[in-house]
Amino acid sequence: MTTAVSIITIGDELLIGQTIDTNSAWIGQRLNALGLDLVRRVAVGDSRDAIWSALDEELTKSQIVIITGGLGPTADDITKPLLAEYFGGGMHTDESVLAHVRAIFEGLGRPMLDRNLKQAEVPRACDVLFNKRGTAPGMWFEKDGKIIVSLPGVPHEMAGIMEDKVLPRLQERFSGGVIVHASIITAGEGESFLAEKINDLENALPPHIKLAFLPGARMVKLRLTGRGTDKTLLTNEVMRHQSLLLERLGKIVIATEDIPLEAILLKWFTANKKTLALAESCTGGSIADNLTNVEGASGYFKGGIVCYYRSVKEDLLGVRKETIDKYGIVSEETAREMADAARTKLAADVGLGITGFLGPTTEAGVPVGTVCIAISDATQTTARTFSFKYERRRNKEVAVSVAMQQLLRFVTESHG
Amino acid sequence: MTTAVSIITIGDELLIGQTIDTNSAWIGQRLNALGLDLVRRVAVGDSRDAIWSALDEELTKSQIVIITGGLGPTADDITKPLLAEYFGGGMHTDESVLAHVRAIFEGLGRPMLDRNLKQAEVPRACDVLFNKRGTAPGMWFEKDGKIIVSLPGVPHEMAGIMEDKVLPRLQERFSGGVIVHASIITAGEGESFLAEKINDLENALPPHIKLAFLPGARMVKLRLTGRGTDKTLLTNEVMRHQSLLLERLGKIVIATEDIPLEAILLKWFTANKKTLALAESCTGGSIADNLTNVEGASGYFKGGIVCYYRSVKEDLLGVRKETIDKYGIVSEETAREMADAARTKLAADVGLGITGFLGPTTEAGVPVGTVCIAISDATQTTARTFSFKYERRRNKEVAVSVAMQQLLRFVTESHG
Repeated sequence: MTTAVSIITIGDELLIGQTIDTNSAWIGQRLNALGLDLVRRVAVGDSRDAIWSALDEELTKSQIVIITGGLGPTADDITKPLLAEYFGGGMHTDESVLAHVRAIFEGLGRPMLDRNLKQAEVPRACDVLFNKRGTAPGMWFEKDGKIIVSLPGVPHEMAGIMEDKVLPRLQERFSGGVIVHASIITAGEGESFLAEKINDLENALPPHIKLAFLPGARMVKLRLTGRGTDKTLLTNEVMRHQSLLLERLGKIVIATEDIPLEAILLKWFTANKKTLALAESCTGGSIADNLTNVEGASGYFKGGIVCYYRSVKEDLLGVRKETIDKYGIVSEETAREMADAARTKLAADVGLGITGFLGPTTEAGVPVGTVCIAISDATQTTARTFSFKYERRRNKEVAVSVAMQQLLRFVTESHG
Repeated sequence: MTTAVSIITIGDELLIGQTIDTNSAWIGQRLNALGLDLVRRVAVGDSRDAIWSALDEELTKSQIVIITGGLGPTADDITKPLLAEYFGGGMHTDESVLAHVRAIFEGLGRPMLDRNLKQAEVPRACDVLFNKRGTAPGMWFEKDGKIIVSLPGVPHEMAGIMEDKVLPRLQERFSGGVIVHASIITAGEGESFLAEKINDLENALPPHIKLAFLPGARMVKLRLTGRGTDKTLLTNEVMRHQSLLLERLGKIVIATEDIPLEAILLKWFTANKKTLALAESCTGGSIADNLTNVEGASGYFKGGIVCYYRSVKEDLLGVRKETIDKYGIVSEETAREMADAARTKLAADVGLGITGFLGPTTEAGVPVGTVCIAISDATQTTARTFSFKYERRRNKEVAVSVAMQQLLRFVTESHG
């Protein structure tokens, strides 16, 4: 039997779209890893009635309710007194939280205000969950066999309390079933095509193994999810189905791990002791940004040149004026010289150059969304032109993803 | 009287945390601009019961329910048949959608599959909302005086249908009250300090004007929201309260518009006809990425050098070996040379250099989270050291935000 969980996210800023809710996805991942079933996520505003009725409703649907947000020091936060009333017993000051809040303000050399003192007040009915990264403590309530956890909305504070306190307790309490995932990342074909290609394999899956299609930027992730009781048995079974899919899908598979492309590239480059350099025009540093999001990137990623102006392409990178004049800023020829120049100027084993018009404006009659990507090593330089049909931001995201996909193909095909 | 709206987001991938829900924030912003009140956002999995009961519940709470997701061509999508049953009348093939799907596949030169044909099947009870960006159409239902809209989950397809079809219809139907926002962005002080400093002004606000504190990366946004009927009157009133706050807050205010820092920088640089270049080490291209997210960045942002390796700092940028040896890779001295070099190598008016250890590892005893930022123009170079205490990714985000805050202060204070 699975244990149902609901998340309630509190904050007007979520409803008017000022903030994107990244907490829920993070919590969902962690609960899933414990075999707990997140069944509903509800966001409500900073309104007493809305919070109260959400709590009532989710407690009828789930055994565990996790609340995030609504605990800050300013006047728009009303969650804590509401919880004290909901669970009864009123409020009191928690001395350990008070000492912690004091220490934070002393460390900052800032005066402690009345409203900061109030952060040490908590409902009597809760277990305090210590927040080492901030002033607002988490709270753990139990009522009628259900568990209610309230956490601050600041992502790294929420995550800290979840990891230190909440997840270990939940794991201890609910030694639920085993869940095993296996993923396949494909590039270059659409969701419908894939679905058709593996239709019989999908239909042959046993009821306790499900297949999901997760479309991304010019790639589709297939995820197998198996549920069972014996981890080894289930893992073998899921992996057998993954192998059948891999065999069927062939060359469109670019990875068999559910980790970001930048992590897959990091693994390949460090395992093969190669280095990388970039010359980015239209993506404006976004590929470099992505590559350096993973720890260890400094072991293979030398750096890059963001050449947004033509003059930077010519003067700093050394792309020839004649090439740009003859073929255009956005051309495979220019991309090739950028890739070669990145590699040689930064003394790297592999260079990648990317140039395009992401929109909304363009030049010299080149269609908006045209992007040329070139990749070069000591023995060869390849280039390809893509045409993206979205708006500027989405075109950038897709261009970054496709560049990393192309790079992964280049290195795995040419170097083994 | 306000009109309540609920969003229902469908997809297992949201609950297991595979996907971050950006659609809801986007929809929330657009509804807010129309004066419609998003009161609840609910995410449920690809389960018939969960979707059905969410629809039942949200229709009791809201007059408008917007559903996203669950319309793709693969087997894990069950929304369309469910809606046909919920609203009665069964399914039929829509000829205009069919022709559109055919044209898309012809354009791609790909065979049309049975499951793509199915995308042209829609519930009889709906008005079809044409999706020019993809194969899954949107649907508009009305029942018992309530409006239910179903949209694909792919963000740019959802946004396209909202802008072309849904928002204009909603605007026509609900000429709701007027909403006026005014924002103030502050940097350098915490939420509690600000709240205390403006406590009396906040308490003096009339009931129809609310103040919200929205903490960001080392900055806090204050947002006034006024609701009324006369736009001019309300705007004047909200602006008067904004002025009082601005006067009280003084120098910690860095902007009075609710637009991203990169858009504020773009405005300043283009208005003042100055250019910018970057030398990024620890932020790995992320500042450049942010700056180039806004259209028009190519008018002032020349480019940058991402110098992740020490050798790139020395060989390409020209930071002196002695400076790094004496003061360290992460030092104000190194940051100064990086800022100067970015400016001169890329022939820009202003240069910014940033170097730091974001974690989890560090070197030479420099604490994790230490970041040095220097900014230089033809007459001066300033540098400052910051200490961030988060994990790697968050440290990067905060460093990027602080660098842009510092840059904004530098240019507005030194040039006008």
